[in-house]
Amino acid sequence: MAKYKIVGFGGSLRKGSYNMMLLKEFKRINSELFEVEIEDISNIPMYNQDMDNNQPESVNLLRGKIRECDGFIISTPEYDFSIPGFLKNTLDFMSRPVDKNPFAGKNGAIMSASISMLGGSRAQYHLRQVLTYLDARVVNKPEVFITFANQKFDEAGKLKDQNAINLINDLGKKLALEIERSKKF
Amino acid sequence: MAKYKIVGFGGSLRKGSYNMMLLKEFKRINSELFEVEIEDISNIPMYNQDMDNNQPESVNLLRGKIRECDGFIISTPEYDFSIPGFLKNTLDFMSRPVDKNPFAGKNGAIMSASISMLGGSRAQYHLRQVLTYLDARVVNKPEVFITFANQKFDEAGKLKDQNAINLINDLGKKLALEIERSKKF
Amino acid sequence: MAKYKIVGFGGSLRKGSYNMMLLKEFKRINSELFEVEIEDISNIPMYNQDMDNNQPESVNLLRGKIRECDGFIISTPEYDFSIPGFLKNTLDFMSRPVDKNPFAGKNGAIMSASISMLGGSRAQYHLRQVLTYLDARVVNKPEVFITFANQKFDEAGKLKDQNAINLINDLGKKLALEIERSKKF
Amino acid sequence: MAKYKIVGFGGSLRKGSYNMMLLKEFKRINSELFEVEIEDISNIPMYNQDMDNNQPESVNLLRGKIRECDGFIISTPEYDFSIPGFLKNTLDFMSRPVDKNPFAGKNGAIMSASISMLGGSRAQYHLRQVLTYLDARVVNKPEVFITFANQKFDEAGKLKDQNAINLINDLGKKLALEIERSKKF
Repeated sequence: MAKYKIVGFGGSLRKGSYNMMLLKEFKRINSELFEVEIEDISNIPMYNQDMDNNQPESVNLLRGKIRECDGFIISTPEYDFSIPGFLKNTLDFMSRPVDKNPFAGKNGAIMSASISMLGGSRAQYHLRQVLTYLDARVVNKPEVFITFANQKFDEAGKLKDQNAINLINDLGKKLALEIERSKKF
Repeated sequence: MAKYKIVGFGGSLRKGSYNMMLLKEFKRINSELFEVEIEDISNIPMYNQDMDNNQPESVNLLRGKIRECDGFIISTPEYDFSIPGFLKNTLDFMSRPVDKNPFAGKNGAIMSASISMLGGSRAQYHLRQVLTYLDARVVNKPEVFITFANQKFDEAGKLKDQNAINLINDLGKKLALEIERSKKF
Repeated sequence: MAKYKIVGFGGSLRKGSYNMMLLKEFKRINSELFEVEIEDISNIPMYNQDMDNNQPESVNLLRGKIRECDGFIISTPEYDFSIPGFLKNTLDFMSRPVDKNPFAGKNGAIMSASISMLGGSRAQYHLRQVLTYLDARVVNKPEVFITFANQKFDEAGKLKDQNAINLINDLGKKLALEIERSKKF
Repeated sequence: MAKYKIVGFGGSLRKGSYNMMLLKEFKRINSELFEVEIEDISNIPMYNQDMDNNQPESVNLLRGKIRECDGFIISTPEYDFSIPGFLKNTLDFMSRPVDKNPFAGKNGAIMSASISMLGGSRAQYHLRQVLTYLDARVVNKPEVFITFANQKFDEAGKLKDQNAINLINDLGKKLALEIERSKKF
């Protein structure tokens, strides 16, 4: 099976972000399934509708990559029981104007890491609702919540928890299967 | 009864934002109940945890105003079935580090305007969950959803719809009553 | 194209339920796409885990029908900003024990009718979260919210609103396409 | 301070329900703050609007108790990422017809126990939205999620986990304070 090309983004903007580590681990663990290009979204400015006819280059570039890829993986922190503003802002920008939404019909998966006991689940359920609007095809299961993230990664940013590694591999396999399904149709 | 001092924010960043009009109408309609100071949040940068010990002046200023006021009113657009990134980002920044959260125990109310038939309701329910985290005391009812907003405001930005005006006045009275309740305790 | 066999349920338990009318209209409007069997769920008792090894005949019968069909359509009322208890109870019973869940991988769609201006949207978003757990493949769009339902049906229970009829047909076509996709894989 | 009278309900219908144990532990741990009357909701039938003018005695009895009490405590299981049907059905029945809603303005708190790692959190957030509709005054914090519940109770149904006991006591104190606040106004 040919490797699928997918785009990964999310993370938080701080150095040492657990969700950025998680994206890199997703890439490493699933290297036989995907070529993952991890995007930096720190250069996406605040969305303003007045710019709809003349959007920044960073926005057009990311949108183009999402449009061209076979699928996407988002790793989201949880801020205040929901999606972080910086990540939601990127999705806002990608999806505007409506006819430019690159997520429509696109296969994707989501995951989260958090130092809390709930592992970012509240952010994921809000994110699922947003992705319903964006008309993406999001993998239902397995759900990947890396709880107590400060204890799960080693100093090099690798996951020490075998259960987590297996789960991330299961998520990758499921996403690859869904992409295959879309390709065949 | 003395007028209460409240802070209003939200809107969208574009010129002619319906939610900014709605904030101004809340202020005008409830001028006997409140002194409303409407804040510009377009100057709040993206939250980054690495700045926690040295946050921007615009953030500290807004946080101070929220801390000092008697209550708050948020008018939120709906983007992609949820809270806009720029507004969520402001809440993210206000609430970090945790001991600086100015919303804890603070009375507030929320409303929304949207050109859609659902009037921003999906954004409001996500916002309620965020405000639960922030430990705010949010008015349950009446809910104010200005649907088909492009038909409800005149050229000067005033509401033409008497039902909407009454509802906004009811929301103001309810918020004032809740603030009074907090003051008495 | 052969017609697909789908199961429809939901409604409310009262006589004259708008959501039951909506199920019947979905069946009528999409009669060239589907054979719809509308189920009566008023005979499903309250779920109790102690019955897991010996579930009632009505439960086994409905579960069998869902397992055998090509897809499902749910029409949900909204009670108290969420899914009605009677409908959630049916889903609870269907999905227990876990290995008996008939929704896993099944294509389906949801819709709602309500006399309110929000048309049952809050129930639908909660229902989507439940169906994520159940691992169903739920159509994202179009969303069908029949608002002010008391004005939209005639005395015979037929929809008078052409926009609503078109939307229900679009939902049917989308569901049929998704089922075709599943069959091909 | 006089003890407040509160009504507790929820649980699941099975014998040995962790959420029923949790209600009893809430009562025991907070016995200096409250007289808790734990209600059996297994006798509440399915809600049907056609009964609005002649509701069952079990419904009227429970509604009367909630109306008369100083506050309420709900312990909810989580079924399929949401509120169990049997519990939602009880809330549906209590709140209909609208002018009979006994929760309006009433102080309350929620908690959950679950054998999962998320401890019932998804049910709680849906329940909060329902209680917003019911216009209840629900304690924001602390949140009480008893995760891995099968390991937290001893054979007599008492909590073995001191953190959980402290959290339940904190929730009780917060609820008592909120009730006091309502009484003073």
